[in-house]
Amino acid sequence: MSKPTPISGFPEWTPPQRMIEQYVLGRIRDTFELYGFAPLETRAVEPLDQLLRKGETSKEVYVLRRLQEDPGGPAGDDALGLHFDLTVPFARYVLENAGKLQFPFRRYQIQKVWRGERPQEGRYREFVQADIDIVDRDTLPAHYEAEMPLVIGDALRALPIPPVRIQVNNRKICEGFYRGVGLADPEAVLRAVDKLDKIGPEKVAALLAETAGASEAQAKACLALAEISAPDTSFADAVRALGVTDPLLDEGLDELVRVVETAAAHSPGLCVADLRIARGLDYYTGTVYETQLLGYERFGSVCSGGRYDNLASAGTTRFPGVGISIGVTRLLGLLFGADALSVSRSVPTCVLVALPTEEQRPACNRIADALRRRGIACEVSPSAAKFGKQIRYAERRGIPYVWFPGADGNPDEVKDIRSGEQAVAEPEHWAPPADDLRPVVS
Amino acid sequence: MSKPTPISGFPEWTPPQRMIEQYVLGRIRDTFELYGFAPLETRAVEPLDQLLRKGETSKEVYVLRRLQEDPGGPAGDDALGLHFDLTVPFARYVLENAGKLQFPFRRYQIQKVWRGERPQEGRYREFVQADIDIVDRDTLPAHYEAEMPLVIGDALRALPIPPVRIQVNNRKICEGFYRGVGLADPEAVLRAVDKLDKIGPEKVAALLAETAGASEAQAKACLALAEISAPDTSFADAVRALGVTDPLLDEGLDELVRVVETAAAHSPGLCVADLRIARGLDYYTGTVYETQLLGYERFGSVCSGGRYDNLASAGTTRFPGVGISIGVTRLLGLLFGADALSVSRSVPTCVLVALPTEEQRPACNRIADALRRRGIACEVSPSAAKFGKQIRYAERRGIPYVWFPGADGNPDEVKDIRSGEQAVAEPEHWAPPADDLRPVVS
Repeated sequence: MSKPTPISGFPEWTPPQRMIEQYVLGRIRDTFELYGFAPLETRAVEPLDQLLRKGETSKEVYVLRRLQEDPGGPAGDDALGLHFDLTVPFARYVLENAGKLQFPFRRYQIQKVWRGERPQEGRYREFVQADIDIVDRDTLPAHYEAEMPLVIGDALRALPIPPVRIQVNNRKICEGFYRGVGLADPEAVLRAVDKLDKIGPEKVAALLAETAGASEAQAKACLALAEISAPDTSFADAVRALGVTDPLLDEGLDELVRVVETAAAHSPGLCVADLRIARGLDYYTGTVYETQLLGYERFGSVCSGGRYDNLASAGTTRFPGVGISIGVTRLLGLLFGADALSVSRSVPTCVLVALPTEEQRPACNRIADALRRRGIACEVSPSAAKFGKQIRYAERRGIPYVWFPGADGNPDEVKDIRSGEQAVAEPEHWAPPADDLRPVVS
Repeated sequence: MSKPTPISGFPEWTPPQRMIEQYVLGRIRDTFELYGFAPLETRAVEPLDQLLRKGETSKEVYVLRRLQEDPGGPAGDDALGLHFDLTVPFARYVLENAGKLQFPFRRYQIQKVWRGERPQEGRYREFVQADIDIVDRDTLPAHYEAEMPLVIGDALRALPIPPVRIQVNNRKICEGFYRGVGLADPEAVLRAVDKLDKIGPEKVAALLAETAGASEAQAKACLALAEISAPDTSFADAVRALGVTDPLLDEGLDELVRVVETAAAHSPGLCVADLRIARGLDYYTGTVYETQLLGYERFGSVCSGGRYDNLASAGTTRFPGVGISIGVTRLLGLLFGADALSVSRSVPTCVLVALPTEEQRPACNRIADALRRRGIACEVSPSAAKFGKQIRYAERRGIPYVWFPGADGNPDEVKDIRSGEQAVAEPEHWAPPADDLRPVVS
């Protein structure tokens, strides 16, 4: 067989990197559970019509077919595609199981998603997302929008990564403000303002005139709003100083003030109100979130989300929600690329039990068994090679200890192969220092 | 939107079931790591030509295409399918990364796989497998074949499930024996004998005559071999009593004796030599494993694998291996169906912090924060409803404790809503009994 090559956009971590990823996912999960989110996993596939409800993402969907299926035959239940996020499957799950769920329903979901996009730095075709959402029936109190940054702040602070800044805005502020200045199509305005970072204020002004029918004064006002940014509630005064009034604008300001205040009480410096944050997806209706990893801003947001009111409804029952999603693969890809994460060894093994002769393998298995029963990860040596070779087996993997079974009535000994220290030990009693028990991520 | 319906073959667990699944996966992973297996995760997709190397599985593969792709265009890197097991991707990974890996390479891999099979009880189109494999370069010592049942025995014994029995055989015994009785096509014999449970000995004898050219005496000998089963090494005497000799047969008997002896020393009663076990896949060349959940035998094997010598090779370098795979979704599906697994509550939350008035939410957030910092999962009540309603919120989810913030200088109190006991408590010091800290699976 010729040597296989990687497939662009489908990253595969090495085992040590996977150890780091598991550590990161474990910490994220712990934080989500500390906030009472229950775990959920949905199937990887959704009916194509569900995935295509948002036209803008249609080009990214991977469609499935069974190899032996008649390609010209009826689609049947095989009109399936891989999910491209965890929000659409969650909305579907809520509708499907509404009768069995308790509302408000707090769930987290950590899974791979797939998008057929052109791969580039920080963009993958297969990647892991870690989502939390809170969904209620009919109405959802705004205080949940203030809770999201607390969870994300705690989750990301628990990781060995650079600090983050969560940028928040509220769609009601934008829509109310645009309405207040007399612009009738807030979505067109949002789409133009969303390009601010890419094309600059002058081109956005031109776009606003062209696509949203904005006058020069209106465009100027929209750009002035987008330039407001503050780490505290002073952003509200800055908005009011622009002299625009609208009831929806007021509602949005109150909600965003609460988000910023709640975050400041919990984690000073975590949240910044940044009124240029728009989020591409149409379905957001309240607070929106983006998250920058400090020092890695050019790679874009590593954690985004927002409030949505119209994602799921059945008859006259609506299920409004708010959610946020950590782009775990993007985060790890950035940090692996910068060599910013490491693990103390490349295998879970703490002790290699050396093998004096192949005949002693059953006795060595018993030693390993005794250690494992006490939670100490170990392997028995692959062969009864010279001890020097067995020690090199451990060294190459970063295994810190080698265990030498005693012979002729002598006791067993265990050697720290980093320091060379060797001491008498019993498998029923010896334990490594806590730092050596498991690989340490830093 | 009309109510969505489940998709046959794509199971979705409820959040409490997912809590059980996470517990089960966590215990399996812990055991794998205690044996020094390093984690690996491969991408969900493989090139179609890799997946189709074994013709027999071709009908099960899900093929991917991007929705906007030209269906008549060149296949390019989009001739991709979802993996149907974790062995084929692992073999490909080893070839791709052989230069970076340390051999023997011990890895575990816990992931979803997909097969476009017709769904039926215990068979899914999407399911989780938990695999371990040990791969070496050029040669792989047979003692690793004896290690597999130890790992699986420990992993499954750590779970709240019925006991298991691992049935072992060795392909060399079958092939050597068939050759010894003068049958030239051992694969045809294996395929016929593999049907023993389904069609019975008479039809197998007819099939042996038809497809393997067996005489009546030869067929009788093959059936006699298949009937041998023993929980100890007496199986080897029973085989020898059949009077057939062949060097490969002797090699296989020695290896299987070692597997059975090693397992008996570690876990008496765990392993049974059962010489009718064949395993469908062509690539096995030594020990093969199947595993019955006692009381659920009719559902088939929940954990299978074997030794393979020819799955991966690059030029003149071969990578022989041995592996075994726990069918986690099948196992859980059986046990969920029999209501044999439960969890003590339906959310991770241990404490609901009651909310006297909405104005006190910041103070209640601080209480929750203090509890969380000490590892106690909690939520603040969704609204300042009457306390009776807030308690019902906790009751419906199985949350054991409700925390009442003190008013007018009175201290906080915490109530066990199962017993009704209520006591003064401080969020910086109070802790629940260990059994209540996290949901308990039983």
